[in-house]
Formats: sequence, C-alpha cells, structure tokens
Amino acid sequence: MKIGVIGASGYTGQELLRILTHHPKVEIAYATSERFAGSAVDEVFPSFKGIIDLQFRKLSVPHIARDADFIFTALPHGQSMDVVAECIKKGKKVVDLSADFRLKDAALYERWYGKHSCPDLLSEAVYGLPEIYRDEIKKAQLVANPGCYPTGAILALTPLLEGGIIDPVSIIVDAKSGVSGAGRSPSMTNLFGEVAEGLKAYNVANHRHTPEMEQELSVRTGEGIHILFVPHLIPINRGILSTCYARTNGALSTAKASKAFQQRYGKEPFVRLVPSSTFPSTMEVRGSNYCDIGVMVDDSSGQIVVISAIDNLAKGASGQAVQNMNIMCGFPETMGLEQIPLVP
Amino acid sequence: MKIGVIGASGYTGQELLRILTHHPKVEIAYATSERFAGSAVDEVFPSFKGIIDLQFRKLSVPHIARDADFIFTALPHGQSMDVVAECIKKGKKVVDLSADFRLKDAALYERWYGKHSCPDLLSEAVYGLPEIYRDEIKKAQLVANPGCYPTGAILALTPLLEGGIIDPVSIIVDAKSGVSGAGRSPSMTNLFGEVAEGLKAYNVANHRHTPEMEQELSVRTGEGIHILFVPHLIPINRGILSTCYARTNGALSTAKASKAFQQRYGKEPFVRLVPSSTFPSTMEVRGSNYCDIGVMVDDSSGQIVVISAIDNLAKGASGQAVQNMNIMCGFPETMGLEQIPLVP
Amino acid sequence: MKIGVIGASGYTGQELLRILTHHPKVEIAYATSERFAGSAVDEVFPSFKGIIDLQFRKLSVPHIARDADFIFTALPHGQSMDVVAECIKKGKKVVDLSADFRLKDAALYERWYGKHSCPDLLSEAVYGLPEIYRDEIKKAQLVANPGCYPTGAILALTPLLEGGIIDPVSIIVDAKSGVSGAGRSPSMTNLFGEVAEGLKAYNVANHRHTPEMEQELSVRTGEGIHILFVPHLIPINRGILSTCYARTNGALSTAKASKAFQQRYGKEPFVRLVPSSTFPSTMEVRGSNYCDIGVMVDDSSGQIVVISAIDNLAKGASGQAVQNMNIMCGFPETMGLEQIPLVP
Amino acid sequence: MKIGVIGASGYTGQELLRILTHHPKVEIAYATSERFAGSAVDEVFPSFKGIIDLQFRKLSVPHIARDADFIFTALPHGQSMDVVAECIKKGKKVVDLSADFRLKDAALYERWYGKHSCPDLLSEAVYGLPEIYRDEIKKAQLVANPGCYPTGAILALTPLLEGGIIDPVSIIVDAKSGVSGAGRSPSMTNLFGEVAEGLKAYNVANHRHTPEMEQELSVRTGEGIHILFVPHLIPINRGILSTCYARTNGALSTAKASKAFQQRYGKEPFVRLVPSSTFPSTMEVRGSNYCDIGVMVDDSSGQIVVISAIDNLAKGASGQAVQNMNIMCGFPETMGLEQIPLVP
Repeated sequence: MKIGVIGASGYTGQELLRILTHHPKVEIAYATSERFAGSAVDEVFPSFKGIIDLQFRKLSVPHIARDADFIFTALPHGQSMDVVAECIKKGKKVVDLSADFRLKDAALYERWYGKHSCPDLLSEAVYGLPEIYRDEIKKAQLVANPGCYPTGAILALTPLLEGGIIDPVSIIVDAKSGVSGAGRSPSMTNLFGEVAEGLKAYNVANHRHTPEMEQELSVRTGEGIHILFVPHLIPINRGILSTCYARTNGALSTAKASKAFQQRYGKEPFVRLVPSSTFPSTMEVRGSNYCDIGVMVDDSSGQIVVISAIDNLAKGASGQAVQNMNIMCGFPETMGLEQIPLVP
Repeated sequence: MKIGVIGASGYTGQELLRILTHHPKVEIAYATSERFAGSAVDEVFPSFKGIIDLQFRKLSVPHIARDADFIFTALPHGQSMDVVAECIKKGKKVVDLSADFRLKDAALYERWYGKHSCPDLLSEAVYGLPEIYRDEIKKAQLVANPGCYPTGAILALTPLLEGGIIDPVSIIVDAKSGVSGAGRSPSMTNLFGEVAEGLKAYNVANHRHTPEMEQELSVRTGEGIHILFVPHLIPINRGILSTCYARTNGALSTAKASKAFQQRYGKEPFVRLVPSSTFPSTMEVRGSNYCDIGVMVDDSSGQIVVISAIDNLAKGASGQAVQNMNIMCGFPETMGLEQIPLVP
Repeated sequence: MKIGVIGASGYTGQELLRILTHHPKVEIAYATSERFAGSAVDEVFPSFKGIIDLQFRKLSVPHIARDADFIFTALPHGQSMDVVAECIKKGKKVVDLSADFRLKDAALYERWYGKHSCPDLLSEAVYGLPEIYRDEIKKAQLVANPGCYPTGAILALTPLLEGGIIDPVSIIVDAKSGVSGAGRSPSMTNLFGEVAEGLKAYNVANHRHTPEMEQELSVRTGEGIHILFVPHLIPINRGILSTCYARTNGALSTAKASKAFQQRYGKEPFVRLVPSSTFPSTMEVRGSNYCDIGVMVDDSSGQIVVISAIDNLAKGASGQAVQNMNIMCGFPETMGLEQIPLVP
Repeated sequence: MKIGVIGASGYTGQELLRILTHHPKVEIAYATSERFAGSAVDEVFPSFKGIIDLQFRKLSVPHIARDADFIFTALPHGQSMDVVAECIKKGKKVVDLSADFRLKDAALYERWYGKHSCPDLLSEAVYGLPEIYRDEIKKAQLVANPGCYPTGAILALTPLLEGGIIDPVSIIVDAKSGVSGAGRSPSMTNLFGEVAEGLKAYNVANHRHTPEMEQELSVRTGEGIHILFVPHLIPINRGILSTCYARTNGALSTAKASKAFQQRYGKEPFVRLVPSSTFPSTMEVRGSNYCDIGVMVDDSSGQIVVISAIDNLAKGASGQAVQNMNIMCGFPETMGLEQIPLVP
C-alpha cells in the first residue's frame, strides 16, 4: 500500500516516517513539507540517511491522490481540515493527526480553535482511540487521531468511568509532558535555554485538549462531565505522564480497582498494567506504542490515583496513527509497531 | 558568630556553605564529614576553590561546642537526633535539617522513620517555617527545619486553610522534584542513566513528608486533616513545583483567592505572588530563597489550583535554615539570602 | 539458536536483550544477574513488560552451556575472563563485551587492568570490529567486542592510516561520551546531581581505552603509534562523539579525504558518511548500530578533522556484539539491527 | 553611577541585570528592548520579581545618554556599532558585548561579519580581557568585551605562548559550549527537541570566533598564528569547556607547565588553577566569574593539554563586562562579582 504523509517535516511527521519505514505492508510514496520541499528527507533528518530515499514535495492533493492509497495528515490544526476534506472527496482513507476532526461539535471547535470550514465531516470522523472505538475505526474512512494528553488521560480513566467506580465530578488530570509535544516550529518559548533545568505548569485549567477529554469521557458516563486539566512542561524530549485523581464511589480496594483495569485492558496489545504498588515511567515506554498504567486507592482520602505513561510522539501521535491505519486496512494491529522502549 | 556545620559534604551541607560564606555576621568555623574528614573543603567541592579555606573534620561534639556558637546539623534522619540532643545540652542553638524533630508525636515519628531516642526534645523544637512560626523561632533554641516538599505545600495551602476558603478533606498535592532532593549518597536509583530523560511518580500516597504536611496543616484548621500527596521525580537538579488542588467552600473568584494570598504574604520577604493568570517556574527561583506562588480558581469544577515553586536546596532546606538562624539570632531576616535566581 | 547472556542486568546487558528479542534467528534462553537472580527480567527492567518472559538466574556455566548455543558475556573486566575460558572449553562461541580479551599483550593488560588468568586465550580472540576483521570474525570462536571509545576512534582513523594520508605521530582523539558508558553500578560519581548540567574531562591522557586504540591503529600502520586520548563526560544518556585530529601528509583536499572514506566504507552497512561540510550528531544514531562520520581538512593548519558519532550502547557495545554474532553464525550481518535512530 | 543596558532582554542582558543589581556602586537606570518595550523587566524575566522595578524602553541614544553614566551594549553584531559610536560621541564610557569592536582589522571584520560602519573606532577600542589588557582597560572609553570562546581559549593558551613553551603552529582548540551561547531569539536550531540528549560539532574550522582568537594569540607571540578551532554544542545551559592541544617546544614536565600558569595567574582574582592531575568542570564555575584551568603534559606525544572552564554568560560575557566596568571606573575589580558557583 502506498502512503502519503502530508506535513512530514515536523516531529510527528518524522516519527511517522520512522515507524512506516519498517512496516511490512506499506511503502512511503509521498511526503510533503512546504518548508523543505525539494530537499531530500535525509538532508532534513540525517538520522534517515541510508534508510529513506525520498524528496520532500510541496503539497498537491491531486498528485498525492494519484500516488498514494492511504494518507496521514500531520499539519497544524486549521490547516488540516481543507486538505483532509479534499482527500476524502478523492476517496482516500485518511488519518488526521491534527485537532481538526476530534471534536464532534463545530461550535466547541470554534471556541477553542477557530472557525471550522467543513463541519459536515465532523460526524463522519471516528475518534481514533482503538481501545475504545476499534469497531468504528475498522469501517472509517476518516480517523481523527487523538491528542497526546487525551490519549493518556482517557486510557487512565475509562475503566473507572465505565465501571461507575468514581464520582465523575471530581476528576483531576495533572499531566506532565516532554517538549517535543510543542512541535518543531521556531519559537522562543521552546528554546533549550527556556526549558532545560526548569519545570512549570502552563494553560492551567485552560488547555485545548480539555474539551477533547471531556467529550470522550462524557460518552463513557452518558452525561456531560468536566475535567480539571493542568498540563506541565518537563525538560525531556518524549513522554507524557498523566497523574489522574478522582473520588471513589464508596469503599474500594486497590486490588478491585486494578481488576477493573485488568478486565478492560487485559487483551489490549498496547496497554500494559504495571505490578501492584509500582507506577509507570515515561522512559519505560519511550519510542514504543505502549501505554503503561498503574493504580492505587488511597483509603484515607477516598481518592483513587491512576498514572499513565505514553510516548507523546508514539502512542500519543504517530504510533497510534499507524495502529489506526492497521485497523482501517485489516492489517494485524501491532504490525510495524513492535519497537521496544529505548532505555536508557 | 562562629558556625558549625555537621554533615557538610552532602548537597544541603554544600548549599549551607555556599550561603553562609557571604553572610556578613558569621564565619564557618567547623564543618564535619565522616567520609571526607581530613580533606580540604575545596578538594571535595572544587567550586569553593579560593573561597573556603577549611578542612572537613570528623564529628566531635565537644570540639564543635568549643569552636562554634551556632550549629547546623545536616545529617540523615536517625543519625541527627543524638547529636542534636548533645549540642542542645551544651547550650548551643541548633537548626536541624533532618526530619528528626519535625514531628511532634514520637509514635508518628516511629511509624515513618523508626524509634526516637530523645522524644522529650520534640515538644521543645520549633517547626522552622518562618512565615508561620516567626515568633516562636525567635525564642527557640532548637529549630526543626522543614522538609522540602512540606515547605512548598504548606506555603501554598496555608492562606486557604486559615481563611476557611477550601474544604480540608479534599486536598491533593501533586509535587514534582528535582533529583538533588535525593541526596549525594551512592545509589543506583539516582544514577544519571536511571533518571535523565525520564519522568515518574514514586512513594505514591506513601511518602514520609506526608505526616509532616498533615501535622502542620491540621494546626491551621484546628482539626486533623489528611493530604493525598503524590511526589514525582523530574530530571533537573534543583526545584520543587507543588501543584495543589482543593475544593472551594462555595463560590470563589480567582481575584478573591489571590487577595487571601496577598494579605497573608504581602509583607513576606521570600514569598512572591506571581501575576494573575501566570504560574511560577522552578527556574525562576533557582539558587534563591524565594517561594513563588500562583493561584487560579476553576469555576466549572469548583476547585482551586495553587502552584508553588521553590529551590529544594534553598527555601526547601539550607536557605530556610539560614533564614531561621537570622531570626533566632536577631539578624535581619534576609541577611545573606539576597541571591538572585540563576536563569537560565 | 539459543542465546545465553551473562551479566544481563547492566546497561549493555539490557541493550543486548532489547536487540536480541527481535532477532529472527535467536531466542534468549538464559540471562544471568547475581544481583537480581530470581527476579523476572521485566521486574528489573519494566520496559520489557509483555516482551520478555524470563527470570534472571545466578551464573552456572554448566547450566548455561547446556541451555545456550551462543554466549554473550557482559561482565566487568576481570570477572569475565574465567567465565569466558570455561565457556570456550565447553565448545561454545562467545562474544565477550568486557575488556578482558581485547589486548593481545598480557603484560599490557596487566598494566592497565590487572593480572590476566588465561593469557593463552588472548591470541585466539579476534578483535570484533567487523569493518576491519570481518573475515577473522567469521571463523572465530571467541570475539573480543571492542570498547566504545575505540570503536568510534578506530573507525574514524582507519582510512587515513591505511591510506598513509596522515602523520601517525600527531593523532589526537577528543571524545565526548554520554553517561550510560559508566555502567549501572551504584556510585556517587555518576549520580544525576554530579553529572547533569555539567561538562568535564576525565582520565586525561590516561584512559584504559588508550592502549586498545593504539594496538589496533598500530596494526593499520605497521608501526607502534601513540594516541593522545582525552575523554569527556557529557550529560546525555547515549552517544559518543569522537573528534579526531591529525596532521596531513602533504596537501590534501577535503574531497580527496572524503573519497578515502567512501572507498573504505562505501559498502559497509553500518558506517554512514555524512554529506560534505556537515558533521554527525549522536542523536542521529541513537538506538541504532550506525557509525556516522564527517571529514574536513583545514588547509591553514594542515590538519584533518574527522568526527564520528555512535551510540555507545549499540555500535559501541551490544549492537556491535550482535553484528559479530551474525558474522560468526553466518546470518545476514544486519539481521536484528535494523533499528532506526530515535529522534528526538 | 547610573547604568544603561542596551539590548537587555537577551541572555547576556539578563545576566548583566542579575549581576549589576547587587553591585554596590551602580544603579540600573535604563534598560532597552525593542521587543519588550513597555513591559516591566520582571514581567519578561519573572526571576526578577521583587528585585528589579524597571520598564524596558525602546532605544533612544539621547535619552540613555541623559539618564545613564555608563553604558553596556548587548545587541547583536552589526546592530551594535552605530549605537556604540553615538554613545562614544556623547562622551559615555561603553562596554560593548557584541563582536563589533573586537577585531582590529576592518577587512577581517568584513570577511566574517559584514561591512563595518565606523572602522575608525576599532583602534580606539580596547579588547576587554583584564588578565591581559588591565592597564589599557583602565584608560579606555570603549571596551570590546571578548567572545565567550575566545575568553576560554586565550586564557588557556596565553601562559604557554608568552613563555615560548609551545609551538604556535600546532594549536587546536576543541571547545564545548552550552546552548545559552546561541542567544534567545526564536529559532528551530536551538529548540529543546533539536539539542537535548544530543551532541555535535558545528562550524568546524569555520567559526567567527576564530579570527578573534588568532588576533589576540598572535599578539602574544609577535607573529601571525593560526588556530584550528572546533566548537561543539552540548545540552546544558551554561558553560564552555575548552580543551586545548599544542606541541611542546622540547621536553616539558606537567609541573613546569603548571608553574608557568601559576606565575602568570597567581594573583588574578578570577583565574583558578585546579590541583595537579585534576581538571575543571563547567559546573564548578556556573553562575560565577571564574575561569578554572587544568594542565597536563603527555610525554608520549609531546603534547600539552590545557583545559579551561568558564560560564559563557558570566566570565564569557556579562561577568567579564562588569569586571571591565570596575576597572574602567576605578572600582575594586571583584566588586559585584562575588557570586559563588551554583552546584549542583
């Protein structure tokens, strides 16, 4: 199958290229970059020297539709929607890594991101979290790949909400992210000197990924819920650790809570439950598509703590995108995603 | 005034030496290290070359009592109590940086740390958080210097609890610490390779600093309260960011909450309230004795978020210890503590 | 083929497990760790959860000889030699990752490392740098896997020495290494707090890898040569950058020097020559078995600068060990070593 | 004395503000930033909250000449020269931190940086390395503050060249720099994701600081010399380690070489010679104005290795600028520069 990657010179694009290169069923036929069009991929990303022999091209939907069977869009939000709409019109299957098709409500999209140019497509798009929407993804033409923070938080909270184990009005997600999540565009904010050796919160209770979490977790409970979401920036490249808090509904043992996770995810290839009284580390999933989860009930406060770790570029973006492609195309779900975490 | 530093070759000892060197009222007369006894201080810490001309000595309480007027003990918990007791008996004023005199209840101490050898001294020791116990510290012979995590959390939560603004049963402290807090002893856990580029929680709802926070915050409310405390390890050297969550008692605006902090800390020399809708960063306090605090109320969830940033070795340990010494000795409180944060 | 890994709980052991797990021709049958014997591999290294189902065992050569066909020893130098000798006696093929069989001269070994217990084996051992000794490795029973620094330096200098292009008495190797090269044993020296945010040289002109470089580069020139080797410690986990300097023998253009590298390494699967006037970065080889090399002649000084980048745990240790195994066993040389560098 | 800082919102400007704030003889009267004009200094740099109460202003030379007695220019090269010329015309003393007045030869300046608009001033400007030009600096109206790399290299090599101990045609400077040296302007190259966890050389034998080193070292020898200068980028914020190599003129012991350094720098307040067989670390000078130097002769190769460590923002820029101001104004040379290195 021939693959087109639109917006391939950012970090998620680079990670898509890394993963797809070894996927036995696909070939990267087309990679676009407005900035680096005309340059060889391995000139822009020397790590691919001897591995990828391709030139970045300027985006032309007719050309990519001619040359590729399946398309990943890794453009910034706002820029993605029109391109996706055109690709869909050409009959292509698309996984969109931007935020443009994640929210079902165009008004909500507009509040957080700006005007949506093709709101009709919102209902067609399937939210690409395979652990929840596997069946819908199988039949989808357009998959909206989840945000990095929502992936970690939703996987951590779903078994609790589905099981009615926690009070949905009390949820707090205290997330810590590596810097690659901020992208590869020139900026002062993400300079090494501004980030390294420091530690801070940002967009407290006001981050664009909040409505995405709320939408998906509300589906789990059947009623609109609110999440208090506080993201932090950590001086590492890859990794999101989501420390989630919620009040339990009545007495609950850690063992029983763990069992809910075991039942929900026991057969999932990419969710790993860490042993009792241990907790996950981002380094232990780095470079892989795993989401590791640890659980503990704190009796004294009647709260449960669930911690999930993902690689924001893998399970939080490009790895999950390939997982979605596998499902959409009938390939084995783990195909091309066997990377073992790189430690240390 | 002649100073003795007992246990001066760890990170808090080193930081004490750095701060005391420029303090205009004191002279470091005696520094002990069992490990490095006989070596020059600047041989063990080359950063002090040309600055400190002193040899590490083995601890001898009679000698230090003879040579020093004021004593800092920076020994591990358990090892500190007997030494402190002897120094107190010799009539010296002591700031103890270990955990040995922080808890008022010997049984509680025993549960978390082990048997206490001089429980009688517990009631004499003053908990050395100047923003709360300034008057008591003035008259104290023995000050128990607070733990790094409790310093950040207690400063963040005190105005809310004193003002009756939050529900004390709902408090969560999600803290993130740099690695220097783990000390300078050889270990596998804190090797660069185990820590760098990673991110993880540890001692979830089970950290020794929990009872210390609970003790002090219970005093604020007049009733025993429980804190859900989750510490995380972050690959930076210095800094603790404490993200604190609590349910508000009734409607509350961010402005009103900020005012409570302004009233409580407006005259404090080392507490800085960051502007509305901004939040502190550990880098902006690094190397200084400041505690920066930011506040936001999240209406939708009825929760307040308070974030404090300190340098764990300064306000979280040695800076605060010198602040305590200044108060105990009638020096201006900020003397020797004017270091400007080192950025970047 | 069944594999035994002796000393599998250090960083090179862990990396061997990571690489071997996906090697299509082998199965890890036996992994030893004195420290963690009895624990599951994924308990010690949680990154392997769901990937490796094996227990660490105490070393017993009879058992490993019964259960494994091919053996990697990843023990500290001094501890490895006797174990290797026993395995060799049992008829096993062995790749030894320690320094014990790298030097041909037992007296030289003794000077740098201590007494050698089986000097007879030194002449049998083949120095496992495939780009130089491929034919010998094919027939070897015992391969001494090169040190990390020597791998980077020898690959950078060999084309120049073989081509007679540089003056062998003028060679300087200024190498910069990540911290994982120092191993995983508890130590104060390699604590995060001692290493992070700093930068220093160590063992200047006095590092144990010097005689290894000298031995191998002397073979290239046919006469004993001396290398001035200065290693530096850099706060990253993986990577060695070797900046090598030498005086050219007469006028030389960068193009001509590059051509010597092209001719020497043009067909090598794991040596990549970076484009003219660019230089390699350790991040671009991280997690992979590549050695990237860049070259420039400085006319004004009559010096050539050659810079090589490797991942010290991969091409500098475990990746190269697997490459050697492939050659020894007649597998395709790149089998199991297709990992693409992890960036960022 | 009233100080004006032109270009105060970059890293060197920020460091000037940090140092000058505690200088007992000066007051910061005027700080310019085109980008942040109108914002409070502590809004742009929250670390200064409660410390600096000043607004950034747009540059107006008449205003700054009216309000300030002494001026620091911390603008990019090319932008600095005209501003400096105007300030000089107004009779102000100036320390210029850009490259604009470091080179004596306008043609050389043009080759590396571009056209010079006021070449007449080049001969008036004094190169601001106090360890060499203290007497000239005393009388100077305009001091060209040295580049960060040249500071480290020139201090390391001067005693050897002055003493005729090394062959000046064989000098190699292999320097490693933290990222803050690249400034605070938005860029992709210096994003955390591009720099962290990596290690690379750049501008090999082609860096703009080369002619500056050559100019100054040629003065030492009395003949034009060439330096092979290879800078590397290291993922730390502050620090330059310069590993310098040269062939010795005849037999030389480490002790004798050290003695040359002792004699040359024994009375220098900011140059520290580390003990024999140890070498400096950037962390041990971080945040301070020290330059630490270690020396070793390698008999086998007839080479000497000199390693210097500085904080690139302090002794490599703003600390040295204040040292120059002290000398120019007759203040004690160390005034305001007593910061002890921040470790860890």
